[in-house]
Amino acid sequence: MSAVRIGLDVGGTKIEAIAIAEDDTELSRTRIPTGWGDDGVVAAVHAAVDAVAAAGDFDVTRVASVGIGIPGLIDADAGRVLHAVNLGVTELDLADAVHSELGVPVAVENDVKAAAVGAASIRGDHGSMAYLNLGTGVAAGIVIGGALWRGSRGTAGEVGHLSVDPNGRVCGCGQRGCIETFCGGGAVSRAWGRGGDLPIRDIFDLAESGADPFARELRDGIAFGAACAVHALVLSADVETVVIGGGVTALGDRLLGDVLDRLRRERAESPFIGSLRLDERIELLPAGSPAAALGAALICAARVTAATA
Amino acid sequence: MSAVRIGLDVGGTKIEAIAIAEDDTELSRTRIPTGWGDDGVVAAVHAAVDAVAAAGDFDVTRVASVGIGIPGLIDADAGRVLHAVNLGVTELDLADAVHSELGVPVAVENDVKAAAVGAASIRGDHGSMAYLNLGTGVAAGIVIGGALWRGSRGTAGEVGHLSVDPNGRVCGCGQRGCIETFCGGGAVSRAWGRGGDLPIRDIFDLAESGADPFARELRDGIAFGAACAVHALVLSADVETVVIGGGVTALGDRLLGDVLDRLRRERAESPFIGSLRLDERIELLPAGSPAAALGAALICAARVTAATA
Repeated sequence: MSAVRIGLDVGGTKIEAIAIAEDDTELSRTRIPTGWGDDGVVAAVHAAVDAVAAAGDFDVTRVASVGIGIPGLIDADAGRVLHAVNLGVTELDLADAVHSELGVPVAVENDVKAAAVGAASIRGDHGSMAYLNLGTGVAAGIVIGGALWRGSRGTAGEVGHLSVDPNGRVCGCGQRGCIETFCGGGAVSRAWGRGGDLPIRDIFDLAESGADPFARELRDGIAFGAACAVHALVLSADVETVVIGGGVTALGDRLLGDVLDRLRRERAESPFIGSLRLDERIELLPAGSPAAALGAALICAARVTAATA
Repeated sequence: MSAVRIGLDVGGTKIEAIAIAEDDTELSRTRIPTGWGDDGVVAAVHAAVDAVAAAGDFDVTRVASVGIGIPGLIDADAGRVLHAVNLGVTELDLADAVHSELGVPVAVENDVKAAAVGAASIRGDHGSMAYLNLGTGVAAGIVIGGALWRGSRGTAGEVGHLSVDPNGRVCGCGQRGCIETFCGGGAVSRAWGRGGDLPIRDIFDLAESGADPFARELRDGIAFGAACAVHALVLSADVETVVIGGGVTALGDRLLGDVLDRLRRERAESPFIGSLRLDERIELLPAGSPAAALGAALICAARVTAATA
């Protein structure tokens, strides 16, 4: 009975759970509703482990490790969640709480960083890449040789809060014109201000019809912000590839097309930027990829291997 | 007779040469005028090796390796200089040309990248740092654990051509509002347009007197550009420390003070930026440090060690 490694992507509405074998092949995958507050999150994590075991028809006693990707500020060494506002958590020793019940190693990681490791695994990427998440906020995770690259203080890849326009909109972080104000789903929806279930889709549709200049401006801004993030990741960390995912990429090829158009125009305008061939170095995370759950499973499994080596 | 490693910093007006022992201690240091064109540069490199040997009173036969830092686009693997406009060189197999005469290993590296390795050695920095060069142009080199970190295609640290203002001045690279347009000595002097031997000093002086709003704007822009470069290096690659050097830093504490003021104002405005404590993570390269020459010597020595290991 070989060991099973579990990975969870704990989001604001659902938990995606994946179980992988020792050779990293997928055994089962499922989704359950998420919990609210400290107890709710811990209970939902346990329910997710049970659910993915049931889906894979294996006993929970075979689970060797549990990796948890979760939004917010994470102390990965301590397995502590410090701020996860969408989950009603301000400070939670999540690794301890889960470990004390399951008795196996538990790792907790920021969901974007976990998704970066998962995206690298999905691509079979052994070089350098960044996973750029265009979600409610904007952040990236950098992976080199399959391993997360955190930097000195854990802010590697935090390009969402680089300012690219001193006259831009004020960002939630207090700066002006951050990349996130251009291409973060939350900031763009707030700037749009017209509500709706799918404001980014509305913006794309109305921009296309040509009748709404503000929609056009916001849509152009999304491509501008994403392109700025790609520039920053390549001209600072020089990753070979930038994989783009997150809620905003639900627009798929419409979004990618805008970003590619922009990067190609830049190539024509600047020989230096042209030499970087940025348009050949970006791609979308395939829709439905369980990148964060898979990455969380891999991160915890790697930690177990390192500890026993 | 122990081996001597030579490092050269080939600039537009002079070559700085250093000789170090096997334990990296300095044996001698000297400066000679640089050469122009392919033959001129090769001849000046040989003259610099002879001069630093004479200054250290050792025989050239003891030289075990020669590292050369030189501005422009460098193919470090091939030891080839591709564009060094200030030296009249468009394509030169510099490593081959020097090796064929001296018969020892020769490495060629971009001068800013070499300076980054040298600055890390001078600091005794075994963590992660960037050397941000505010010279005619603006570029940084990233060093992790004492070794140069090039990235995937050699553009790691090229933050000078990140645009931080879509309405900014046009950059030589074809983009608008690049960091280099704000804090590169060449771009700022051109924008100033009043000539003089030390235009950046003139700008600082006139800004201080308060009588010249354009000088004030340019001086503020220098601090703005340098702060943007620090942001990009920390929020992408997350280096622990940014060491700032290059011609513009001849202004010493006046420049550093401006940048620190700006970073401290940002701390007050943004809790997120405040949490990065950027003002505690920057420093100036000590005046007169032979960072590029030392770094070139260390890069070549490390390559010899790696090849014989």
